[in-house]
Amino acid sequence: MFDNRYGTGQSTLDGVIRATNVLLAGKTIVVAGYGWCSRGIALRAQGMGGNVIVTEVDPLKALEAVMDGYRVMPMTEAACLGDIFITATGDINVLDERHFGSMKDGALIANSGHFNVEINIPQLAAMSQDAPRKVREFVDQYTLKSGKHINLLGEGRLINLAAAEGHPASVMDMSFANQSLSAMYMAQNAKSLKPDVYTVPEEIDKEVARLKLAAMNVNIDVLTPEQEKYLASWEEGT
Amino acid sequence: MFDNRYGTGQSTLDGVIRATNVLLAGKTIVVAGYGWCSRGIALRAQGMGGNVIVTEVDPLKALEAVMDGYRVMPMTEAACLGDIFITATGDINVLDERHFGSMKDGALIANSGHFNVEINIPQLAAMSQDAPRKVREFVDQYTLKSGKHINLLGEGRLINLAAAEGHPASVMDMSFANQSLSAMYMAQNAKSLKPDVYTVPEEIDKEVARLKLAAMNVNIDVLTPEQEKYLASWEEGT
Amino acid sequence: MFDNRYGTGQSTLDGVIRATNVLLAGKTIVVAGYGWCSRGIALRAQGMGGNVIVTEVDPLKALEAVMDGYRVMPMTEAACLGDIFITATGDINVLDERHFGSMKDGALIANSGHFNVEINIPQLAAMSQDAPRKVREFVDQYTLKSGKHINLLGEGRLINLAAAEGHPASVMDMSFANQSLSAMYMAQNAKSLKPDVYTVPEEIDKEVARLKLAAMNVNIDVLTPEQEKYLASWEEGT
Amino acid sequence: MFDNRYGTGQSTLDGVIRATNVLLAGKTIVVAGYGWCSRGIALRAQGMGGNVIVTEVDPLKALEAVMDGYRVMPMTEAACLGDIFITATGDINVLDERHFGSMKDGALIANSGHFNVEINIPQLAAMSQDAPRKVREFVDQYTLKSGKHINLLGEGRLINLAAAEGHPASVMDMSFANQSLSAMYMAQNAKSLKPDVYTVPEEIDKEVARLKLAAMNVNIDVLTPEQEKYLASWEEGT
Repeated sequence: MFDNRYGTGQSTLDGVIRATNVLLAGKTIVVAGYGWCSRGIALRAQGMGGNVIVTEVDPLKALEAVMDGYRVMPMTEAACLGDIFITATGDINVLDERHFGSMKDGALIANSGHFNVEINIPQLAAMSQDAPRKVREFVDQYTLKSGKHINLLGEGRLINLAAAEGHPASVMDMSFANQSLSAMYMAQNAKSLKPDVYTVPEEIDKEVARLKLAAMNVNIDVLTPEQEKYLASWEEGT
Repeated sequence: MFDNRYGTGQSTLDGVIRATNVLLAGKTIVVAGYGWCSRGIALRAQGMGGNVIVTEVDPLKALEAVMDGYRVMPMTEAACLGDIFITATGDINVLDERHFGSMKDGALIANSGHFNVEINIPQLAAMSQDAPRKVREFVDQYTLKSGKHINLLGEGRLINLAAAEGHPASVMDMSFANQSLSAMYMAQNAKSLKPDVYTVPEEIDKEVARLKLAAMNVNIDVLTPEQEKYLASWEEGT
Repeated sequence: MFDNRYGTGQSTLDGVIRATNVLLAGKTIVVAGYGWCSRGIALRAQGMGGNVIVTEVDPLKALEAVMDGYRVMPMTEAACLGDIFITATGDINVLDERHFGSMKDGALIANSGHFNVEINIPQLAAMSQDAPRKVREFVDQYTLKSGKHINLLGEGRLINLAAAEGHPASVMDMSFANQSLSAMYMAQNAKSLKPDVYTVPEEIDKEVARLKLAAMNVNIDVLTPEQEKYLASWEEGT
Repeated sequence: MFDNRYGTGQSTLDGVIRATNVLLAGKTIVVAGYGWCSRGIALRAQGMGGNVIVTEVDPLKALEAVMDGYRVMPMTEAACLGDIFITATGDINVLDERHFGSMKDGALIANSGHFNVEINIPQLAAMSQDAPRKVREFVDQYTLKSGKHINLLGEGRLINLAAAEGHPASVMDMSFANQSLSAMYMAQNAKSLKPDVYTVPEEIDKEVARLKLAAMNVNIDVLTPEQEKYLASWEEGT
């Protein structure tokens, strides 16, 4: 969760900036999805002065995006408005024929979700006059038959890996600590665990957070016996 | 969730402002807790130009607060730094003897959690020279034996109810819709539900969000059959 | 400058919230103007979770608003999109016949500029079926002949004075200090000053800021002799 | 102004990230100065989830930083707290012997002001055990005699030029337009202008902004004759 939320936001924008050197301030940035990755991207895009539009299929997440101050609309509408599009939904063809046609001349499109299927690249190629022109190292410029240009970043692969360095070490450490403590937990509890998919025990998440805070020299409060007792009485009582 | 996160943030600050007419910009605002209510308060306090310190007992939430850009520290340290303190933890004596003594002269303290137990008011009274002086309608000023003044807002009761109007209707509507659809669900499924505590079915949450978005004239994307199939294949596959 | 920028933002939203108890999160908030007052309002409206649209007549200020991440458009377009409109331009009829007709049913309109002329109230009345209905203490609801409702807050007078308490004392102190030091300056320099309009000497602004910082216990850096010399050599050199 | 404010913020952080791949979220970032460049850096650093401390020598700017929600303190105090230091003051030795000694082990220091004099590098070298070790392409790690490490980015030269690509084209276009229109203005008015330093005529700034907005497809309001007349009457009247 921490690497998706805090790592992806920074590294995705880092990838977009390295690929294009575009100024984010004043741009309309369309983020497809409002899961952990995509809300990290939306937050950082706004933090860099972008005006963010979110697209979603889940009404609960869409409503959260609205309440967080973003515009929310279908991608067919957002397609006309965006300067930069970033997909992070985990689904296919989030940017497709019906969107490419209505994009602005010069639109930038990038993916930060799984695999290079979120943008329908074969369709984009089919709508184009020729093979794309490599205008910068990670920028393929497609010229549509209408004459408009669409710039695909990093060949639609995860832009933070393609054009930048992926997640910073200082967030991946938590993910790896989590994975190794989880492996230890599985080894220690091998006998009692039945074959199944388990979520990581909360105690491991807390232990990783505790270690991380200590490494950052951040101290936090500890419940007094009196406070523990009060909370326990509530939990019993309800 | 929506009323706690989005409603409490605004209405708590509204309560503090109505009670005191203090300018939040430039103030150090200490928020006790980083649950849904308290993170709403922290977000809006920062949005009004405050410099926010968060205190927490849960390392995971504390780490989130750090990664969200806030300072995190024990309340004993925060006590020396804050201009305004707002508790929203659900526990008792979050502000207590060991904190009052080190607060700045003129500190404002308010509660936005459950009941008026988060601030240890009897202790504050015991440390004071006399009965508190009512300096504004919702402000009781305690003068400690050291001569310092501490201003308790709304008698430690929920400040958004004490001094303001509580949550706006436009967020409570969702809570009430949720409750009435849940009641309907219970009536319809009375026979199959065994006596127990159930969480609200996700479908009800989604339905309320769908209705709310419609009322706000916000349209969202719908999965294409192709996208549904792709997601389903993943879920099957994993 | 400080009271306009930091005071007006908070007190204007405070006025709107007290008048209506509306939740700002998720609302589209149109701010007319991007001077000191209006940019304070825009910043705080975004800080409360609103989605802000700015209208301007000055291209430089309009461009700043764009680069600050807001949408910028003519009021005739914004009129269709806004849930809440706040004027702070210093000009007349910023909201007028051509805007009222295209507003959403239930739109809230308020003024935070000088006098009650920014909203063309006689025109709004002329477009309405009857006299407005007072739906809350500071809310006059006009019903247009089309059946749509437009809610005028505080009779178009400065909403932060009409429905709230105006600027907090902690920002007005600076304005008053500035005015009294300026009066002193005029008295002391009465002989050498010719009749004219003068701007406040920078040294007075700095002195007020210095006193305010001291009162807030904020220490700042002081140039070393070496640094002063370096800066001076630059100024001489250029 | 636009390139300093909006360009430097993004490109400086871009330089720091490329040089180090550090995650900004959760870091304490000390920005020296609160002029146009440095406030752009502070704003973007906060927008990326950093907790920002500002140092200043001018009380007016220091007070603005406080009111904008940042912590303000002398560099000697900030030195103990920062994870990342960025100087943009235009003066010399802003980071000097009295600061290096109290920095955390692993602190990152970078410059985004003019020339490489803001960080006293000879002093840093004198305090170190050996020549610095190049731990990444743009990172020289100094090991103090105390054993602590301080990482100097881009040899103290402008980090946005050293490690990134400088300002994005989309902001420099305005600076260059401004310069060429100013040159034209000088040529056209050669006879009437006496040898002196002139500020760019406001009309040129406005024209550049007008062209930029048009290029971004942003329309803005135009004063009605009635509004022009009202404003003019005020200006006459006052």
